This record gives sequence, structure tokens and C-alpha cells, in this order.
Amino acid sequence: MKILVCNDDGIDSVGIYELVKELKKSAEVTVVAPLTEQSAVGHSITMQTPLRVINYYKNGEFFGYAVDGTPADCVKIGIRNILKESPDIVISGINHGSNTAINIIYSGTVSAAREAAIMDVPAIAVSVTNHAAKHFNFASRVAMMLAQEIAEKPLPKGTLLNVNVPDLPEKEIAGILLTKQGKSKWDDIYEQRQDPYGRDYYWLTGNLMEVDNELDIDQKAIKNNYVSVTPIHFDLTDYETYDRMKEWKIEELLNGKEKK
Amino acid sequence: MKILVCNDDGIDSVGIYELVKELKKSAEVTVVAPLTEQSAVGHSITMQTPLRVINYYKNGEFFGYAVDGTPADCVKIGIRNILKESPDIVISGINHGSNTAINIIYSGTVSAAREAAIMDVPAIAVSVTNHAAKHFNFASRVAMMLAQEIAEKPLPKGTLLNVNVPDLPEKEIAGILLTKQGKSKWDDIYEQRQDPYGRDYYWLTGNLMEVDNELDIDQKAIKNNYVSVTPIHFDLTDYETYDRMKEWKIEELLNGKEKK
Repeated sequence: MKILVCNDDGIDSVGIYELVKELKKSAEVTVVAPLTEQSAVGHSITMQTPLRVINYYKNGEFFGYAVDGTPADCVKIGIRNILKESPDIVISGINHGSNTAINIIYSGTVSAAREAAIMDVPAIAVSVTNHAAKHFNFASRVAMMLAQEIAEKPLPKGTLLNVNVPDLPEKEIAGILLTKQGKSKWDDIYEQRQDPYGRDYYWLTGNLMEVDNELDIDQKAIKNNYVSVTPIHFDLTDYETYDRMKEWKIEELLNGKEKK
Repeated sequence: MKILVCNDDGIDSVGIYELVKELKKSAEVTVVAPLTEQSAVGHSITMQTPLRVINYYKNGEFFGYAVDGTPADCVKIGIRNILKESPDIVISGINHGSNTAINIIYSGTVSAAREAAIMDVPAIAVSVTNHAAKHFNFASRVAMMLAQEIAEKPLPKGTLLNVNVPDLPEKEIAGILLTKQGKSKWDDIYEQRQDPYGRDYYWLTGNLMEVDNELDIDQKAIKNNYVSVTPIHFDLTDYETYDRMKEWKIEELLNGKEKK
């Protein structure tokens, strides 16, 4: 199996190193990852400036290609220019910290996997649920197992798996659950501070408001020590509202109050 | 009506200026927009560095607040810190260039409106379908009409409208259509060049592969000179695949080949 690995914490993070170490036991792995941390960049891509690609070494050995861009950039240039053929799968991670509920929207880790799905390449985003995460090996094995599942039972084009693994020793993992994206979101706070010159600046912080109470929801599953596996896609159409809005008759909007 | 206006082309762009001029005829408008162009930043938010907020003047008059961050940052800090109460609606735009099909994923304009929806504030993203757009006034009036529609017939929490207006004189507009997100996407090309020191760099370019053929799809609607109105949301769960994946029995995955 040919695997392209990316992440958003940067090519020098522990999570990607541990993932690659495990995947290499049974697959051909190419790493294309951001040179610097790219958390919360969402699905940002670099168009206004060019990209550089640097050979990155770890412990004296070639580890992969570092790109001075975003996670989505890495997947795009990885598939288009660095690899000679499309990989069998893209695995993004292992992220230090969970990507559940609203965080899926902000996540660079998920956007790298989503970019692969846009390019019709199967993809998995993997996160361990703790910013000071320690248990990467189990999460890496889960990623490999799911990659094998997908190889046998292909996902529809445009669908990817978002996987969150509790940061626990394997024997404390309660199991693995198929889940949906939760509705928990951040109560944002901007801390107002003053710089040494008396000018204001604002730093984003906040608390996650947990509203997810069912075990088949990503955020609740990880809280109960389950591995959470959510199929997500990039069709953002709200079909329910689409059907309801037919009653608006918006095609008549221009004729009425406005059209001259 | 109290309206918060944001965009991704930056506070000094023509599109936001024309939008604000029109909205101010009938609403109370506050502008919180990026200091610099933020196209294709997706749903990026700034966490690693603080934000500055600058009073921005245009033609000798106070125009709004410029933030050295992303469109989503502007909406967050606009609602949390700058406004004393939540606005009735957030309008993001007017973007110079269409935000249809796959571009919705990359768009800063859409992400600003989506951030508002995440914060339970009604929101509209508005784009004119040409990077060298000229016809902002009609698009601004369409935005105001839709804002009034939403005030009368509220959208569900978490749903926003993504609006694309052909860059044409009003009399050439074919009408207004309720649409779904299209499947057209980019065939990416990285142009490989060399800097003055002989080092390679890569610049993203490409062609939109148009695959949308039905008039109720955003990309096709604008091609046929219709205003396109798409309800979108941020629940990324692929429910169809979720149902299908129940047959995978992933809860047994750990028991079988892997669990020790």
C-alpha cells in the first residue's frame, strides 16, 4: 500500500513521527508535511505566494518533504508534483488534540484529508484527544487497520474518515464506534491586553461548551474512552433547508419589490 | 436592522465599500474586515498570535474596524468585543469572484458567514462572479432583499445562505434560483520556476473542471446568468455513508486482527 502522510502540527512533531514509524512496517510511506505548525488554518491554500519544498532529515535519515505552506497545500503538491503516481490513501496526523464537533471546521489535519478526498484519493484524519498526547502507537495501528478496511470496502468519492483516539493506554480503550459530528462548540473569549507601548491587543481563548450526550456522537464517544470514526464529506448543501426554502419562491423576489 | 459586514478581499476593496454604501440606506452597519487580502484562507482562525484592531478611514470618514487576521477572526471579535450586542445578521462580501462548487471549501468570504452561523447569528455570503467585477450595486440590493427575507422567515440555526450574482447589468440577469453546491473542481497545476539563486519554487494555478449541468446547481445557474442562492451548513457528517458503514461492524475491528 502506498501512503501519503501529512499533518498540521508540522513535520517535526511527535505525532507524525510515531505514525510514520508504525505505517512503514507494512506500507510504502511518503511524508509531505508543513515546515511549521499550521493548527486551526482550516482549509487554507496558498495562492498569493509560491511554495518551497525542502528535504527534511530526522536522526540523520531522510524523513520527508517539508512545505512552507498549509496542510491542504502539502496534499495538493504531494499528489501533483512529488509523487509520481496517486497514493492508495492519504493519512493526516496524528494530531495532538481532538478534532471533534465544531473543531472539524477549523482543523488543518482534517482539511489535509479533505483535500485528498477532493482529489478522489481515499483519506483518513487521525487525532489523539490531548494536546500533550502520549499514546500515538495505538492510534497509528487504528489508522492502518482503517486504511486496510477502506482498501477492501471503498468509501464513496468525496467521503473521508475523521478518527479520534482517546489518549489512553490501549487496555483502557472502551472500543471503537461509528459516530456523527457533534454540536459542541466554543464559547470564545478575546483576552484584551496591552503591549509595552500601551496599545491593545486581543488573544483568542475560550471554553468548549459540550452539548453532545449520545454515544454515537464524536465528542461523547471520546469522552467515554471510545475511538470515534466519523464519515464526513464536503457537500455543504443543507438539503432539508433547500426543500423548505422552495416555499420562499425566491425566483419571484426580483419581480416584486425590486425588479425595475 | 443591525448588520455586521465582513469580507475576505480586505477592508479597502471595492466590493465591501459598495455593499456598505447600499446597506447604509436602510440599516445600521458595522464593518469589521481583514486589514489585508485573505482570499482562499478557508476557515482559518488566529490562535498562535494576538489580533490588533485598527480604526479604518475611507475618504476622510470612519469606515470600520480593520483586523490583522482572517475573515472568521473578524466575525468572532466583531461579535464578541466590538459590537455591544449581537447583530441581526452578518453579510460577508461582496467577494470579487464566484464562490460556487468546490470554491466554497476554500473561500474566506463563506467562512466569515459560516463563523456567524456557528455563533447562532443569521448570515449571508455574497459574491460577484468575476475577479474584475463591476456590478456590485445589484448584488448589494440582492443581499439586502435576502436579509429581509431571512428576518421574516428565519433559517434554522447553523444554516447560512451562499449567494453568487453574475457580473452583469441588472437587465441582463435571468432571474434568481435556489441551488445546491456543485461538484466542479480545480485541475491543479504547480508551475515550477527558479528564483535568481537557482532554487525551485512552485506556484499554484489550474483550471476549473466544470461538471455541473443542471440549473439547480450553483455553478450552472451563474453560467446561465441567474443569481444563485444556496443554503449551506457546517454539519459535515456523510449520513448516507454513516448508514452504509454500519455493515462494517467497526466495533469488532479491535477484537479481531488487532486487539491484544
